[in-house]
Amino acid sequence: MKTNSTELIKKTTAAKKASKVLARLSTQTKNKALHSIADALIAKQDEIIKANKLDCSDAKKAGMDAAMLDRLMLNPDRIKGMANDVRTVAALPDPVGESIEARVLPNGLRLERRRVPIGVIGVIYESRPNVTSDISSLCLKSGNAVVLRGGKESLRSNSILAKVIKEAAQAGGMPGDAIQFIESTDRALVNQLLKLKGTIDLIIPRGGEGLVSMVTENATIPVLASGVGVCHMYVDPTADLKKAVAIAYNAKVQRPTVCNALDCVLVHSKVAKKFLPMMAKEWAKAGVEMHCDKQALDILSDFNSKRAIASDWGKEFLALVAAVKVVDSLDEAIEHIEKYGSGHSEAIITEDYSAAMRFTEEVDAACVYVNASTRFTDGGQFGLGAEVGISTQKLHARGPMGVRELTTYKWIILGSGQVRP
Amino acid sequence: MKTNSTELIKKTTAAKKASKVLARLSTQTKNKALHSIADALIAKQDEIIKANKLDCSDAKKAGMDAAMLDRLMLNPDRIKGMANDVRTVAALPDPVGESIEARVLPNGLRLERRRVPIGVIGVIYESRPNVTSDISSLCLKSGNAVVLRGGKESLRSNSILAKVIKEAAQAGGMPGDAIQFIESTDRALVNQLLKLKGTIDLIIPRGGEGLVSMVTENATIPVLASGVGVCHMYVDPTADLKKAVAIAYNAKVQRPTVCNALDCVLVHSKVAKKFLPMMAKEWAKAGVEMHCDKQALDILSDFNSKRAIASDWGKEFLALVAAVKVVDSLDEAIEHIEKYGSGHSEAIITEDYSAAMRFTEEVDAACVYVNASTRFTDGGQFGLGAEVGISTQKLHARGPMGVRELTTYKWIILGSGQVRP
Repeated sequence: MKTNSTELIKKTTAAKKASKVLARLSTQTKNKALHSIADALIAKQDEIIKANKLDCSDAKKAGMDAAMLDRLMLNPDRIKGMANDVRTVAALPDPVGESIEARVLPNGLRLERRRVPIGVIGVIYESRPNVTSDISSLCLKSGNAVVLRGGKESLRSNSILAKVIKEAAQAGGMPGDAIQFIESTDRALVNQLLKLKGTIDLIIPRGGEGLVSMVTENATIPVLASGVGVCHMYVDPTADLKKAVAIAYNAKVQRPTVCNALDCVLVHSKVAKKFLPMMAKEWAKAGVEMHCDKQALDILSDFNSKRAIASDWGKEFLALVAAVKVVDSLDEAIEHIEKYGSGHSEAIITEDYSAAMRFTEEVDAACVYVNASTRFTDGGQFGLGAEVGISTQKLHARGPMGVRELTTYKWIILGSGQVRP
Repeated sequence: MKTNSTELIKKTTAAKKASKVLARLSTQTKNKALHSIADALIAKQDEIIKANKLDCSDAKKAGMDAAMLDRLMLNPDRIKGMANDVRTVAALPDPVGESIEARVLPNGLRLERRRVPIGVIGVIYESRPNVTSDISSLCLKSGNAVVLRGGKESLRSNSILAKVIKEAAQAGGMPGDAIQFIESTDRALVNQLLKLKGTIDLIIPRGGEGLVSMVTENATIPVLASGVGVCHMYVDPTADLKKAVAIAYNAKVQRPTVCNALDCVLVHSKVAKKFLPMMAKEWAKAGVEMHCDKQALDILSDFNSKRAIASDWGKEFLALVAAVKVVDSLDEAIEHIEKYGSGHSEAIITEDYSAAMRFTEEVDAACVYVNASTRFTDGGQFGLGAEVGISTQKLHARGPMGVRELTTYKWIILGSGQVRP
């Protein structure tokens, strides 16, 4: 039962209708349904793994590389992890109904700005099937219906997951129509989805730069985009170099394949000769390769280093590779970040008060750090609970997005007959 | 010196650079510059009025109607009003730098979410030249550079206004490049502007439905759209009918040409026979014309009424005309609003607790009223100070938008060497 254009309209309209019911469900009911989903993922794991095996074998035949295949693959452990993640979302505080502000106007009108769900959220995502349960649970917890469109490599896995989630949500007391899955990889359907103003309230692209650009360029409805993380760390002359080394190691090595990993180290010329070999020695333990400007290369020639090419500046490496550059001032560091950063996470290592103040004020990024690892940019680490993504846009939400960022507000005005003078 | 495509890039790039300086100006400096702008508007009024006269005479020759001509026209009184509006913005609290939330994480990281300007705001607007000073002052107060593109009818007026504002801002201590005016009515330039990702951070369309749709459909950068206001008022059987009449009169008659004016009255069949003639008698004093469904027309045949046509439901009349319909239940009223409302302002008149609760919860609009006039939907009335517009979108801001809605935030994380475990 592939989805065609007519089916898409049916599904999204049903989602819209269900969103009205969902918006008013109690936290108790929503949590019960989320636990029902977690239980069902475990109970139906054989069915899910069977579908996933077909996806994996097709992907392997099509020449998918080992890393990607690993991301696609589901096993009992991973399904248990997915179920646990759903339970984590159930345990989060419910953002819906929160009074953001409330006051009485001079004319006696009682004015309240109250948090409400957005409505119907369309999610377009790539190959990892766990996104299906992650994003569904985040949307449902925040009272939103969700329309899912996954990547073609995981079509069978996503389809069975969406079916299991939908049935379990319904059994748990939610309208089943609140979860819709687009059973098609037709690009034309995505284009149609991106223009369903009045039905879809928000589009979230989850994936690489190509997907995000395609969505922002074609959507006529609002988009909440996560972006690329090109993260810098600037080592000031006053830095505690031991801390700087530990932070550089953590930010680059702990998990190099994610967006908040370090990509480029900028070091002041006054401390470059001392600091760079300290860092390189530590990085050598993990096999980090350094792409250096001339000055840095002169210092680091005994280590795993080579001359940087132009495209190394502003590059998200997603691997054990980093760019290294010597700068002559804080200004030069800030200018470099302005030019090459992606507005994600930037750090300064310093003991100088004024340098710290200037860096936090002048660097235009979602997360600006003093003396800490960029790896902290994460909804869980920031105490927001599970995470929808890391926004590098400035409208609506910036940085880690939790369930709160899947809500909007309405103004409620209680009067006793007031008219405007 | 018309703006062409190359000039547009120059101007927007200069605005981006200026926005960095502007973002860090003190409130004192910004307010001083705003007062300098207000003074200059008065001092240069002859020059402004001279340019405006040319615009008006061209518009008259081109057959612009009297109401539109009146909106275009500037005189010393109106310029004084514009200057006063700029001073009002200067008097507003500065949203920049506000700590939205701040806490210490268990690992000792000091986490703060701090309000910062958005950057460069592009504004595309129609014929009223006062928008030039209004929106410039709101953008500057909130620390944003602004790129202005007005309508062709007011090109000369807007051009001189932008010049006066730019020079005065500079004299007052702001970077002059923070105000850029697109001296052209070429549509291709607008299209170019709507796609300047990385330079323009936000586009605000100010004008009718056509302009707003054009912008939302063509922009690849985020849009903050004000929308059409199709406002309903539902009179419940338990309503205090005297209050209902007073509110209907205020909402329809006080200023019929604005988006928060009443467009459609829904009345419960139990009180229709009593209420509708009371309302019609009052409305007759102002000459309101009623477009009625069959039941309402039967009751109102002695008044200024006629049978509604299909397009009257969901119409923003912007005139002394209203649609009137009899409904049999609160559910029917809510369904009608769901189908025909524009998500702007909706009101219920009731003394029934449960009806009031259901209406505020179930109606999906920016502003939902109980026993008060929809005319209150306004930044000034809500205590937000001057207003950028009324958002009917759900992302970023909903309802009246003040200077706070022209800001975003960044996360600032102060550490002492923390790394992620």
